[in-house]
Amino acid sequence: QPTASDATVAAVLDALAFNDKGLVPAIAQDAGTGEVLMMAWMNAEAIAETLRTGRITYWSRSRGALWRKGESSGHVQRLVEFRYDCDGDTVLVLVAQTGPACHTNRPNCFFNAVRDDRIEVISDPVA
Amino acid sequence: QPTASDATVAAVLDALAFNDKGLVPAIAQDAGTGEVLMMAWMNAEAIAETLRTGRITYWSRSRGALWRKGESSGHVQRLVEFRYDCDGDTVLVLVAQTGPACHTNRPNCFFNAVRDDRIEVISDPVA
Repeated sequence: QPTASDATVAAVLDALAFNDKGLVPAIAQDAGTGEVLMMAWMNAEAIAETLRTGRITYWSRSRGALWRKGESSGHVQRLVEFRYDCDGDTVLVLVAQTGPACHTNRPNCFFNAVRDDRIEVISDPVA
Repeated sequence: QPTASDATVAAVLDALAFNDKGLVPAIAQDAGTGEVLMMAWMNAEAIAETLRTGRITYWSRSRGALWRKGESSGHVQRLVEFRYDCDGDTVLVLVAQTGPACHTNRPNCFFNAVRDDRIEVISDPVA
């Protein structure tokens, strides 16, 4: 993943429709397996950093700060491809994930499933 | 996909953390191919209907009404599995998609990609 130029970063930011808090939801999908890993939020700064560095950076709504995924855990996400949707209000990042994506140490965050008419936890922590 | 009981619907709604507008983002993923099709929003009523009927129903923020996906286009989504994430603020529905998922008649909504340092449209309308 070559880093994006300033012109491309500007074009992407211009194409996106941020919400009233200046954020867009960003879905992270494993580029190899197709597994949906997590959903978090990005602001313009997070998107610019993601595109420039090739390292996925979100905006932490709870901390009110950039969240360089894996900065403390080591479970970084490398950008494979950056996409956005038809109306520009959702981002999809294809990533190469190091370690588990979820803070529970599960491979992905979507481990609660309705099966057999009840809620089941369908994966275990891996680390 | 058997329909969910009232008890299961209630348990799911209780586990979810709706935002200040009573909504959660819902990611639709093709259960067969793993393709991320679209992201839309669900409120409690949309989730209950989705779980009870096995037919994906969103909440249209623009229309302020339930959006039974495919009601006008025929491009319905049948629920294969309902999942939600670690902190209950995002839903992932695995679906069987009839026709293109996107209103542009592309297979999915994420057809804008950054490639070779520019924005490319990576799929064509199929219908």
